[in-house]
Amino acid sequence: MEFQSFDAYLIEHRERLLEDYKDFLRQPSVAATGQGIVDMAALVARRLSGIGFSVKVVPTEGDAPPVVWAELGEGDKELLIYNHYDVQPAEPLELWESPPFEPTIRNGKIYARGASDDKGELVTRIHAIEAWLKTQGPLPFKIKWLIEGEEEISSPHLHGWVEKHIDWLKKPDGRPMDGCIWEFGGFDDKGRFTLTMGVKGICYLELHAKAVSHDLHSSLAALAPNAAWRLTWALSTIKNSDERILIDGYYDHVRQPTEDELDVLFAMPFEEQVMKEKWQILDFVTGVTGFDAVRRLYFQPTATICGLTSGWEGVGAKTVLPAKAMAKIDFRLVPNLTPEIVVDLLRKHLDKHGFNDIEIKLLGGYRAEISDVNAPIVSACARASEIVHKQTPVKQLLSAGSGPMWSLSSFIGGVPVVCAGIGHPNALVHSPNENAIIKNYEEGMRYFGVFIDEFTK
Amino acid sequence: MEFQSFDAYLIEHRERLLEDYKDFLRQPSVAATGQGIVDMAALVARRLSGIGFSVKVVPTEGDAPPVVWAELGEGDKELLIYNHYDVQPAEPLELWESPPFEPTIRNGKIYARGASDDKGELVTRIHAIEAWLKTQGPLPFKIKWLIEGEEEISSPHLHGWVEKHIDWLKKPDGRPMDGCIWEFGGFDDKGRFTLTMGVKGICYLELHAKAVSHDLHSSLAALAPNAAWRLTWALSTIKNSDERILIDGYYDHVRQPTEDELDVLFAMPFEEQVMKEKWQILDFVTGVTGFDAVRRLYFQPTATICGLTSGWEGVGAKTVLPAKAMAKIDFRLVPNLTPEIVVDLLRKHLDKHGFNDIEIKLLGGYRAEISDVNAPIVSACARASEIVHKQTPVKQLLSAGSGPMWSLSSFIGGVPVVCAGIGHPNALVHSPNENAIIKNYEEGMRYFGVFIDEFTK
Repeated sequence: MEFQSFDAYLIEHRERLLEDYKDFLRQPSVAATGQGIVDMAALVARRLSGIGFSVKVVPTEGDAPPVVWAELGEGDKELLIYNHYDVQPAEPLELWESPPFEPTIRNGKIYARGASDDKGELVTRIHAIEAWLKTQGPLPFKIKWLIEGEEEISSPHLHGWVEKHIDWLKKPDGRPMDGCIWEFGGFDDKGRFTLTMGVKGICYLELHAKAVSHDLHSSLAALAPNAAWRLTWALSTIKNSDERILIDGYYDHVRQPTEDELDVLFAMPFEEQVMKEKWQILDFVTGVTGFDAVRRLYFQPTATICGLTSGWEGVGAKTVLPAKAMAKIDFRLVPNLTPEIVVDLLRKHLDKHGFNDIEIKLLGGYRAEISDVNAPIVSACARASEIVHKQTPVKQLLSAGSGPMWSLSSFIGGVPVVCAGIGHPNALVHSPNENAIIKNYEEGMRYFGVFIDEFTK
Repeated sequence: MEFQSFDAYLIEHRERLLEDYKDFLRQPSVAATGQGIVDMAALVARRLSGIGFSVKVVPTEGDAPPVVWAELGEGDKELLIYNHYDVQPAEPLELWESPPFEPTIRNGKIYARGASDDKGELVTRIHAIEAWLKTQGPLPFKIKWLIEGEEEISSPHLHGWVEKHIDWLKKPDGRPMDGCIWEFGGFDDKGRFTLTMGVKGICYLELHAKAVSHDLHSSLAALAPNAAWRLTWALSTIKNSDERILIDGYYDHVRQPTEDELDVLFAMPFEEQVMKEKWQILDFVTGVTGFDAVRRLYFQPTATICGLTSGWEGVGAKTVLPAKAMAKIDFRLVPNLTPEIVVDLLRKHLDKHGFNDIEIKLLGGYRAEISDVNAPIVSACARASEIVHKQTPVKQLLSAGSGPMWSLSSFIGGVPVVCAGIGHPNALVHSPNENAIIKNYEEGMRYFGVFIDEFTK
């Protein structure tokens, strides 16, 4: 690789590329509501096509966001890249210092919904490949790029899409591809670059309670059933205040980490005090500390109420007996505990406890994945970090976050996956004032160029 | 009383008076949000002043809605009238067939927020007194009228106001007034006119849970405390799914009904099947039926979740771990169980169960009241019903609803109270499409005129 021309290109086109980054951020693309999704998919397709990729915008199901599929380059070696063009909802809007879809630069950071997750990552890679093609010539291997639009709502249609297009996700002779670069990654609190090779799974669902025909005057509560109480009681059977999930058979599907996994886990940095200070708490739940907390974070499943809604939620007193109540719950999953198992066990659990009136509505989910920490693509990513960041990266066995990695790794023949990106710990992804560090974006383009070079070797 | 001229006046001024009714309904006056409250108090004062009342708009506390106090007439006999000019919030707006603050007449009913509760009642009485004054001469006794603006949020400032102005609420020599006409009343499912002489009490409060500094990514749930779970667990300790309130000492303050009370209760109609069909349920809570259900409705306290809110409540999946969660709860109270006792016992209960992190915010409350069912004012109301409605009214010991009756009955020396109004069972008070039957309003004006005449005797 000829560094000088690559770097010179990035400097010469700095303003235009940054404006392009902003264009991506100006276009809302909220999977939860559908806002701007179609326009965003078109923008991604146009941009990839503009630098030479062969692009398809492929429907998933019904009106669901399409997958953008792009291919470029020749050779036996094949690299898969996974990104997503959708973002989390921007609410609560009043907590943003600048509007979520008007990218604003302050103190070396760019603020907008998606600045990091995931448009920042996507744009860094597009710009790096543009610079490679303009300065180094054709790609030295084949890149297949999958950019979906439902990651933030648990990718309900991605696995079905992968099943349908399984041939695209293998080499022409049916062998698995040589590696996959995942949608996120980056630096930790201490500035250490981190390579992550797995994710927890997730099962995201809603519980709906309905008790009477319509909201009643609350004076009738001595006789009329109340949906908010039904939901509260049902929820309280799912997890107790000792943080024990009470669903029969749930922990039967939780395997212990292997010795090899424990070794990688043990070497991972864990900033316990930093986390507690940032969250303003004295103790983690259950009082867990040290390596026990690390094991709990990565190898224990969770049951999390993400939202509650029922009856009167405005200011002051309204004496209403709610006819309906709803909870949003996500279960983070460890290997062996699949979304299908969770829904099945939860239905049985609710029925057993007398809550067959509570409806489960599955919104999406995916399995856990732990990929090969010693694969060649991991080594290539590590060498690129030594060259660009001048440091040996931390190897993280898996992330506590989730993603459809199983569908793009084990399911397609065992493609080794690495998360290597531009993120930082104060990026406030999923929160107001999401941001990315501009230096990370600029260094990230060079990193991706060097990675292309190293992965060739 | 000279009926013919009274009736002729109402017929002659029908359109103007109906337009006046609509003017009351067009003016929003939502105590929960403050919307329109000041303008509504001014409208009520202007209208009462216009027919000859001496009117004061008296502040309560800070920016809280004022009390409208009006006096007219001379004599040793004194009648207290209690109404309120505030209304419930109109939400959910999408369920209204016509806008809540644009009164609309369809099929003999007038639809608007407040059409029954309580502007319909207030306007009926104002118009009846106007007709009396124009056709019968001066009032035969003194009327003192208290119209407050916070009834729908549990009258947080009324009792303090009564304490401050206690002299106004007694006769000049300190004896109690002779009776009080309450803000609501009317007809049951079978068209029977009902006189009610008591109310349950209420204690309305919010529970607030706060767990971490800000909303976190839900992948951190294995370690970070969750406000929605804290709230769910705290709530589930308050009442179990057998509808038993689990607060220590709560039932110590629940007295059994006396034999006399049971006699009145037993004679009251109770349309069990009608209620179940309307609510679309097979059973009341606990499976209670018949007279046990009547006793439960009127002599058992409740704990009702009126609202729940936390985290992501919009469409689809947002993977957030909520920093805050809130429940609105109302406790309906029987004699002896006061709002002060409830707050005290609840605080101790939460602390005992490890929920000292849950904050209690009291929004308002009042005690239960059971007034004298055999008082002269009750007989006058009954005679008026025989004359106007041609029926012997049902005597109802108390309503399952609540109101500040204790402050305007026992507290001011034992003033006997009667609820006698124009309501009907499908008025949808506190719900979308609240309405009043226009025939009830018209008959109600005549009823009030006849009552004035009968109460003189």
